[in-house]
Amino acid sequence: MASEHIVKSYDQELKHLQRLIARMGGLAEQQLAQAIEAVEERDSALAARIIAADRQVDDLEAEVDAHVVNLLARRQPMAVDLREIVAALKIGTFLERIADYAKNVAKRTIELAQAPAVQPAYSVPRLGRYALGMLKDVLDAYNGKDAEKAREVWSRDGELDDLYNSLFRELLTYMMEDPRSIGVCTHLLFIAKNLERIGDHATNVAENVHFQVTGRTIGGERPRGAGAEAAKA
Amino acid sequence: MASEHIVKSYDQELKHLQRLIARMGGLAEQQLAQAIEAVEERDSALAARIIAADRQVDDLEAEVDAHVVNLLARRQPMAVDLREIVAALKIGTFLERIADYAKNVAKRTIELAQAPAVQPAYSVPRLGRYALGMLKDVLDAYNGKDAEKAREVWSRDGELDDLYNSLFRELLTYMMEDPRSIGVCTHLLFIAKNLERIGDHATNVAENVHFQVTGRTIGGERPRGAGAEAAKA
Repeated sequence: MASEHIVKSYDQELKHLQRLIARMGGLAEQQLAQAIEAVEERDSALAARIIAADRQVDDLEAEVDAHVVNLLARRQPMAVDLREIVAALKIGTFLERIADYAKNVAKRTIELAQAPAVQPAYSVPRLGRYALGMLKDVLDAYNGKDAEKAREVWSRDGELDDLYNSLFRELLTYMMEDPRSIGVCTHLLFIAKNLERIGDHATNVAENVHFQVTGRTIGGERPRGAGAEAAKA
Repeated sequence: MASEHIVKSYDQELKHLQRLIARMGGLAEQQLAQAIEAVEERDSALAARIIAADRQVDDLEAEVDAHVVNLLARRQPMAVDLREIVAALKIGTFLERIADYAKNVAKRTIELAQAPAVQPAYSVPRLGRYALGMLKDVLDAYNGKDAEKAREVWSRDGELDDLYNSLFRELLTYMMEDPRSIGVCTHLLFIAKNLERIGDHATNVAENVHFQVTGRTIGGERPRGAGAEAAKA
């Protein structure tokens, strides 16, 4: 009975899928939190560790894919189970992207740490923490199968866009005033863009959690920030 | 017999899925080709049409998702069919992203068209056409279930990175020499980044086509350009 090769029940297999996604989410969250810290502390050693750890998330995504294919092939999931499995497959893709963006932030942090600090760098962690908050909460929504919480995270994307647009303008102004800062500010521009994209993907996860739980998409257009479209894309 | 409500065969349902993906791919390709043209011709009216047409791709993605869930629920696909269905779900996600990046290029084109042209703008279409070539070929690989062609597209991502890195440096130099161009060049930086990302997603599609056809992942690390990592992310 203590054999590890005991045949798992369908229910255990579904739980295993949930745990894989939760573990991916936890890793993505940790990578993002550390990437923000690396930017803030100009810590290249931490950034290098983040880059090295990205592979774990990729491996977990492959494990999610394989487990999903296996589940679909051996069971005949219906209705809510099927929605859960399909949602897990998509959520895995988004979490992998989020971790990838965190890795990209870490890569640029190494470049930044070699140059003098500029003022707008201090606004980046705030944007990062806002995106991190969205990620934390959407993972809670996933773990708790909480459609209302998913919708609440979804509605925050517009505020993140506003923060991003304001930082974008700050960086542009800074570059114009001090052209020697163009190289550094360009890295910060892309770091900011990566953080804004992380919020987009947290929003994608929220849409999938909502669909998984309710069978319905979140109604209406995705919220937009009040800022100009110019800084978007 | 001529009834439209005749029950479709499993084979017809799989073909329908392939057609949905082919249609999404065709639309994404058209959106990208037009976005490159809009940049090249500084054509805001064309850019506005691209932005408006993005919704069609989103709708197709929702149709793919619904069809996949339906297929999985009603049939019990095994082995190669199951791989095909799961691959279609993921490929749909990547094609939606590609069309979204094309839309983002179009949005920035509208901003660009209001400002004086700068020299590096002429290098952008070349990068765009390289990404477009990857997209065209990976869609051919999908339609022809051609794993070798998928691997060939996959191997081109490093070259695209090199083109991107060279454009990135050109833009940085240009901004430093003429700080009045910073606003315009920043839009071009993000356009270039969007095009580079489109190549990444064409590479993701290639990986899924290869897996669908052979059941194996493409071996080895994803090819990297010879250029510095600095410009990446």
